[in-house]
Amino acid sequence: MTQLQKFFSQVDQNEQHYISRLAEAVAIPSISGDPSHRQDVVRMGEYLQQELKRLGASVETRHPGTQDWNGTGRILTLPPVILATIGNDPAKKTVLVYGHYDVQPALKEDGWTTDPFTLVVDDAQDRLIGRGSTDDKGPILGWINVVEAHKQLNLDLPVNLKFCLEGMEESGSEGLEKIIYDEAQNYFKDVSAVCISDNYWLGTDKPCLTYGLRGCVYYHLTLSGPAADLHSGVFGGTVHEPLIDLVHLLSKLVDSNGKILIPGIYDKVLPITEKERATYQDLSFSLQDLHNSVGNVINLHSDVESTLQHRWRYPSLSLHGIEGAFYNPGDKTVLPAKVTGKFSIRTVPDMNNEEITRLVKEYVASEFKKLGSKNTCTVELTHGGDHWLASPDHWNYVAASNAVEDVFGVKPDLTREGCSIPITLTFQEALQKNVLLLPMGRSDDGAHSINEKLNKSNFIKGTKLLGAYLYQVANARI
Amino acid sequence: MTQLQKFFSQVDQNEQHYISRLAEAVAIPSISGDPSHRQDVVRMGEYLQQELKRLGASVETRHPGTQDWNGTGRILTLPPVILATIGNDPAKKTVLVYGHYDVQPALKEDGWTTDPFTLVVDDAQDRLIGRGSTDDKGPILGWINVVEAHKQLNLDLPVNLKFCLEGMEESGSEGLEKIIYDEAQNYFKDVSAVCISDNYWLGTDKPCLTYGLRGCVYYHLTLSGPAADLHSGVFGGTVHEPLIDLVHLLSKLVDSNGKILIPGIYDKVLPITEKERATYQDLSFSLQDLHNSVGNVINLHSDVESTLQHRWRYPSLSLHGIEGAFYNPGDKTVLPAKVTGKFSIRTVPDMNNEEITRLVKEYVASEFKKLGSKNTCTVELTHGGDHWLASPDHWNYVAASNAVEDVFGVKPDLTREGCSIPITLTFQEALQKNVLLLPMGRSDDGAHSINEKLNKSNFIKGTKLLGAYLYQVANARI
Repeated sequence: MTQLQKFFSQVDQNEQHYISRLAEAVAIPSISGDPSHRQDVVRMGEYLQQELKRLGASVETRHPGTQDWNGTGRILTLPPVILATIGNDPAKKTVLVYGHYDVQPALKEDGWTTDPFTLVVDDAQDRLIGRGSTDDKGPILGWINVVEAHKQLNLDLPVNLKFCLEGMEESGSEGLEKIIYDEAQNYFKDVSAVCISDNYWLGTDKPCLTYGLRGCVYYHLTLSGPAADLHSGVFGGTVHEPLIDLVHLLSKLVDSNGKILIPGIYDKVLPITEKERATYQDLSFSLQDLHNSVGNVINLHSDVESTLQHRWRYPSLSLHGIEGAFYNPGDKTVLPAKVTGKFSIRTVPDMNNEEITRLVKEYVASEFKKLGSKNTCTVELTHGGDHWLASPDHWNYVAASNAVEDVFGVKPDLTREGCSIPITLTFQEALQKNVLLLPMGRSDDGAHSINEKLNKSNFIKGTKLLGAYLYQVANARI
Repeated sequence: MTQLQKFFSQVDQNEQHYISRLAEAVAIPSISGDPSHRQDVVRMGEYLQQELKRLGASVETRHPGTQDWNGTGRILTLPPVILATIGNDPAKKTVLVYGHYDVQPALKEDGWTTDPFTLVVDDAQDRLIGRGSTDDKGPILGWINVVEAHKQLNLDLPVNLKFCLEGMEESGSEGLEKIIYDEAQNYFKDVSAVCISDNYWLGTDKPCLTYGLRGCVYYHLTLSGPAADLHSGVFGGTVHEPLIDLVHLLSKLVDSNGKILIPGIYDKVLPITEKERATYQDLSFSLQDLHNSVGNVINLHSDVESTLQHRWRYPSLSLHGIEGAFYNPGDKTVLPAKVTGKFSIRTVPDMNNEEITRLVKEYVASEFKKLGSKNTCTVELTHGGDHWLASPDHWNYVAASNAVEDVFGVKPDLTREGCSIPITLTFQEALQKNVLLLPMGRSDDGAHSINEKLNKSNFIKGTKLLGAYLYQVANARI
């Protein structure tokens, strides 16, 4: 029996114990977005530190400082970032694991079938139901399960393991980026590769490795004219209305079929290679999955490949709303004096944020000029996050792919995601190491929704996967 | 000395007395839009009933019943409609006077220089400052001044006078329409003509008679697709976004220069006649007045005639806002599932609401079809109020015009307004009599704003005008 087989067997024996520990973790309502639960976030961090110490880890904390709660002047202390190390063998590779111990808010009244902070074991449907079960307490405990199983078996881990666990992920990871850069040449100096288990399978029946994320640039397009809101009866038909101008400009940004109309915006998008195209075959995804996710048949593309390519590797432009106009139910005959349209562009390699902003501003200015309006038009970039792309040929990915085959007997889907996980890029840029997204949960886990769940089989097999991954990393040829 | 000259002289002698009475009326904060002031509205009505009775009027009240406060389930009693009659001579014409004794809310903190409910007499600038001074307590007291002066002179009024005074005008005139229709063949049976003094001069130096108002049809244009709001990172580029469709459709309704793009919408607009065109000469209005009103130079038309024609006698289409989209400050990467664009069309003779709605629905449906979207699109008419046009050649207007010459020595501007005053049309349709809008205040009175004022000269000369109008009515050849 190999060391890995012993580990797998030990995991199976520990199943009830793992579920009990997940129940303990779920019972701590560590909601980072609610000040009244800030102490619960801290308590959740202490729980993890205690578990790690019990298993022989050396544990430190870093303190990101304080936050001004939503700009209200209410000062809250940020929960600590937990740094932990198990093993310090210079002959071994060092894997850095990231996770977060805070959760989204959850109230029974939101529509939960059961109390969100009491883990419910639904054996019939193989589900462990509770807030944080899949996002991200299950995956963090998966790593702890791996360490504990080895300790029980009196086996050394095949690699050195470092942890970076934060308590503010659901609230913008405030303060974490600085700590990562500060520790890049210190605590994280010897890291060989990074593994983050905080996303989801593409579908519900097959593991995946995720190697890319789109970036996001967010713009405010503001039109102003009158000094104050006007009455449409008195002024309608006699003045240039900012909202009319805004709607015309927004309609020039993107067509109803999702095509971005800004000249040059697609120029830097990398063409798809044959090798990349092959990764879109046999994915665990169907158009019905999309229909189910959005609750309607409103797909832009008629096949899976095209749909996923537009989600992962092509840019998109979305309109989010308008600030300054009438938004309540009912009727109001106001002419808003100043209106701001909010839109964002999801970016992909090799688009460049500065260049996109230049293209957006030039195009909006030229379209505004065509309107012949006397109003004032400005465009402001309010947020810019870069896209991220790792090489799935890197030994870190090869190790993970082999580990999936070890545990599940199939090759994983190679996926990207349409949204941003900014910390991924931060780790890659600060540490200059390959970052792997290795999810534990399924696409239908409902991470930020009601009745969040982690399948029991995903928890147990996921624990095995994380362990198997460490063995594959240890054996990988760099 | 004629009876009219005696009356003018009496008004001049009473100036201080009239101002004192206006001060008493302003001191009662009869805010119909604030439940905590409902008793003050009732008290203001009682004050007027007492004044009218003291001057020999026979006074009755009608009770519109109750209202459900903003749909909250809080039931409030509506203030009474006051009906009063002075004179019952079958040989005389009968003039029906409408006014409202409620006011807009006002708080010192809103930016008032002085306490809103303490009338300030600013002799240097000829201003009487206080909430309700011009809207509409000053005009109502103008009529009472006329009656009182005649009583002091022991003179009969040249006409029979009837009053209809309500306390809910600033809150939608709830319950009034039914009372007017109920009394059309009863209390209002013998009415020869109607006079409403509740609007304003076109400018600041010349009286006007107002003979037309635009109508207003309000629409909700709703686009829906997903079952719930979506994340733009995950779904942007793969589904038809309702907000993108909505913005495209809104941009097809009207161009940046105010031209409505709905085919056929202008077909029923009456062409301007030479006679009507002549009324646009020598109006007390300049483009600078428009610039001052809106606080910027954003005029669509380069001359006064065209500007006022587009405010008064051509339709306009305005966009008001969007319900269901992101409207707060900041950034949010939501794809709204269901969005409703709000727009309205100001209508003019001979546009017909049913036909407009048909044109709007057909056009939106055809433009939506062009988009090729899988979302769902609906258009709903939520409010329709008709335009109103009276003949300025009617004896009622000729009488008022002559009265303006009697008091001010000039011919009045003949004006229309861009907004709706629904009660005007109700009186015309229920009583089938000519309705005259004969304003007392100036365009810069700030009726619904801070530091509302009525010029003292407008109050005194306005009182003379209302009296002179009654004499001209009495002498008018029907």
